[in-house]
Amino acid sequence: MKALEDRIRTDGRIREKGTVLKIDSFLNHLIDIRLSNEMGKEFFRLFGDQGVTKILTIEASGIGIACLTAQYFDVPALFAKKSKTTNIDSDVYSAQVMSYTHGQVYGIMVEKEFLTAQDRVLIIDDFLANGAALDGLMELVNQAGATLVGAGVCVEKAFQPGGARIRASGVRVEALARIKSMNEDGIEFC
Amino acid sequence: MKALEDRIRTDGRIREKGTVLKIDSFLNHLIDIRLSNEMGKEFFRLFGDQGVTKILTIEASGIGIACLTAQYFDVPALFAKKSKTTNIDSDVYSAQVMSYTHGQVYGIMVEKEFLTAQDRVLIIDDFLANGAALDGLMELVNQAGATLVGAGVCVEKAFQPGGARIRASGVRVEALARIKSMNEDGIEFC
Repeated sequence: MKALEDRIRTDGRIREKGTVLKIDSFLNHLIDIRLSNEMGKEFFRLFGDQGVTKILTIEASGIGIACLTAQYFDVPALFAKKSKTTNIDSDVYSAQVMSYTHGQVYGIMVEKEFLTAQDRVLIIDDFLANGAALDGLMELVNQAGATLVGAGVCVEKAFQPGGARIRASGVRVEALARIKSMNEDGIEFC
Repeated sequence: MKALEDRIRTDGRIREKGTVLKIDSFLNHLIDIRLSNEMGKEFFRLFGDQGVTKILTIEASGIGIACLTAQYFDVPALFAKKSKTTNIDSDVYSAQVMSYTHGQVYGIMVEKEFLTAQDRVLIIDDFLANGAALDGLMELVNQAGATLVGAGVCVEKAFQPGGARIRASGVRVEALARIKSMNEDGIEFC
């Protein structure tokens, strides 16, 4: 999606010797609503014929884009909550996620009544790199017996292994901007 | 706002002997986007003439309603991030918030470059009870030297002291549903 690629080139900031891309000026701290709405429309163009009944994301930075996307599908958005402890509450589906950014494992959960075997789920998130968050969300969908339609992510770091691995498992993953490589001199998209 | 009051009566669940209202089936876990959009329009009706330049909220459950509201104002949404430690980074504004739900103090912060003295800020949040989150967000606005237009909250527990205290300090606070009392038998709105 050209508007997103252009914005990443203009306002994305590359840190930690080319490994970290900060896009907190328009996507995951300050949120550009116009651009996010354009991304939501694009996700609907890609998945609008799939009978989606629910958008699933993870707190916190996925919530904005998930809600703005959900309005084009006219379905509810559900965000998995993070918890410090492994949740063994029988009323919830839960999974563990490895955060590479923070170097720790955290739990995520959704209440069982909000994700059911009748749901056709589209996962939406802001970033895809190692795919750990996506793995955790897919695990929740799986526990619920729901149907996973696919995953839409705003930005994929295609030089990290998550996207390739998850696509190889048969899941449809659509990324609106796929970064082939980046360093202090600039960004190359796929 | 009648649609919200009706929904609270229908789907709100009162817990812990009348002190806790759970509205996670439509506002802060599973999010009803249609209802949230109606709330966003109502916030715009209330504050649309105030020259708002930015919507400010706090992660995680404020983000959805803040983003959906921001599109009616055609301005960006900014969410304060929670942190376990008091942030003394010179690039951020930070404040402390007492969580009565979790019985602990946590820090919140926004990056300085995203909140400036030129901003006219509308704070949006899902709940107002003791007003601790609102206090923290107002502190960030104050540190930035920005102008606070007011605060819009979806649900105010008017039997708790936050709303009255903050209004008495001169801040315009608009709540779309104001709960006068609640117990296991039902809910009375103001």
